[in-house]
Amino acid sequence: MKNSLLNRLTPKEPKFFPLLKELAVVIQKASDLLIDLIDHYTPESAMEHYKMIKEVERAGDKLSNKVFDELNTTFITPFDREDIHSLAGKLDDVTDRINGCARRIAFYKPQRMPKSMSRMALMIKECGVSISHAVEELDVLKKNAHKAKAYCKELHEIENRADDEYQSFIMELFECENDSKEIIKLKEISYELERATDEAEQVGKIIKTIIVKYA
Amino acid sequence: MKNSLLNRLTPKEPKFFPLLKELAVVIQKASDLLIDLIDHYTPESAMEHYKMIKEVERAGDKLSNKVFDELNTTFITPFDREDIHSLAGKLDDVTDRINGCARRIAFYKPQRMPKSMSRMALMIKECGVSISHAVEELDVLKKNAHKAKAYCKELHEIENRADDEYQSFIMELFECENDSKEIIKLKEISYELERATDEAEQVGKIIKTIIVKYA
Amino acid sequence: MKNSLLNRLTPKEPKFFPLLKELAVVIQKASDLLIDLIDHYTPESAMEHYKMIKEVERAGDKLSNKVFDELNTTFITPFDREDIHSLAGKLDDVTDRINGCARRIAFYKPQRMPKSMSRMALMIKECGVSISHAVEELDVLKKNAHKAKAYCKELHEIENRADDEYQSFIMELFECENDSKEIIKLKEISYELERATDEAEQVGKIIKTIIVKYA
Repeated sequence: MKNSLLNRLTPKEPKFFPLLKELAVVIQKASDLLIDLIDHYTPESAMEHYKMIKEVERAGDKLSNKVFDELNTTFITPFDREDIHSLAGKLDDVTDRINGCARRIAFYKPQRMPKSMSRMALMIKECGVSISHAVEELDVLKKNAHKAKAYCKELHEIENRADDEYQSFIMELFECENDSKEIIKLKEISYELERATDEAEQVGKIIKTIIVKYA
Repeated sequence: MKNSLLNRLTPKEPKFFPLLKELAVVIQKASDLLIDLIDHYTPESAMEHYKMIKEVERAGDKLSNKVFDELNTTFITPFDREDIHSLAGKLDDVTDRINGCARRIAFYKPQRMPKSMSRMALMIKECGVSISHAVEELDVLKKNAHKAKAYCKELHEIENRADDEYQSFIMELFECENDSKEIIKLKEISYELERATDEAEQVGKIIKTIIVKYA
Repeated sequence: MKNSLLNRLTPKEPKFFPLLKELAVVIQKASDLLIDLIDHYTPESAMEHYKMIKEVERAGDKLSNKVFDELNTTFITPFDREDIHSLAGKLDDVTDRINGCARRIAFYKPQRMPKSMSRMALMIKECGVSISHAVEELDVLKKNAHKAKAYCKELHEIENRADDEYQSFIMELFECENDSKEIIKLKEISYELERATDEAEQVGKIIKTIIVKYA
């Protein structure tokens, strides 16, 4: 039944937007858990938090597979199918990266958790909020792309701030830390946090490309 | 003659598939040589193996240039020309990355070659096999994308396993290795091995985008 | 007035090429300043040079935003709007990466500035020149893509040379440097220099995709 011609021909547009919104919610959930992990960090508790983030990441994986399956059984889509596909994939990448941050912390078990990490996790959460707002605008994009553009700009600015935070942290790390292993561990963890905001900015770039195509 | 109008108008579809299949074979050749390099590693022998991989990588480079040239002299293509172009480019990127792994090993000359490296090289080879299978499905993609999807899923799963292997290795490295230089060298090498499976997963993503567009 | 129908319908093609050319000029300016920074490096002077590069980077940011705005108020474009958008974005990425190199140097303040860094900065400048030439060819691309292809090949070759330089430098670094911090700092800086030529090669790949689509 699912693949029947009738089913394929029935307009199905609306279902993509809820799925994309759910993917944005998953990003926020993962970033909330990451803030928890970092703010209450102990080398012992980190693995427990990481496992919770891993579960959220798996839920995101299922959602993005669902988008892919829907694309293959739907004729009429609100945007070019490859744009929906790449947007869903990139939303999933953000969650993957947050999961990557949690895993590095849980596996590397640094001795301390500098305040910088906490600030970067908050920026990732900010990205999640901007992404949710931007995704909310998708169904009116062809009429009014003004707000969506503003949210993409926010993502660009948050990434810039995260980058500054990362570089300042590394500078301080080189100055104050003398344990080479600890330097490498903290550098790798903060790099992954910064890359999570990078991926979030990529979501903005994909949405801007969609704007350029349709607006 | 090559650029004559008659030549350009003659349907030429079939020639792209053999070239893409050859590019997949190149990936497997390179990964076989990488397994050899790692399993019989000595700081002295690595350079010799690397040179062999470098030659395979050059052959891949020529093949992907050939795809580019063919695209510019052919009117009718089985998929959008930019999709063939990006697929050929990404197949070439996988071989490039395998070459990058071999080069890092040959240049950094780590004191030991942990078993993890060997397991990751085997996963890269597995990727090569899945890629070959997926590319074999390209000419029936518009009729039946079922198998191609399954191979893309395999690539995603292998990448996940390689990522787990990489992270476990790094964790162990931080615990057991005390020579900072050796930590940096082995971290960089294993990171490049993991990235080779990343690139392979990207091949899967491009094929999934093609499926979404045409299936 | 800017968004009036008349304005949107008036053919506007020519304006994109000047903007893209300006973005290429920005890359050259940034790379000239980077050469200065490196050739006259002292841990004290680096921050001053970095600030100058930062200003050039901001100018590039404004230009690429201008391209985005123009795309949203223009009906007729010389290529698909998403291709112009991704080309402008990637040109901006090259400048961003040059800025990233300067920032790492200014923030990490390595004790010495090896000759390799200088050679890589020169290669980045070479990339800038090839990019400018390639962009000059855009408006005749549909008639004759021969020269544009040659410049893309140049970018590929410069990236290969930069990669060789990077790897040789790292090999030497592991052999001759014993201060772990200094190893990490110089490795990170040279990696960023190499990545700037990577981004430049990506410009070539986007232009090649445009050639494949239109030539």
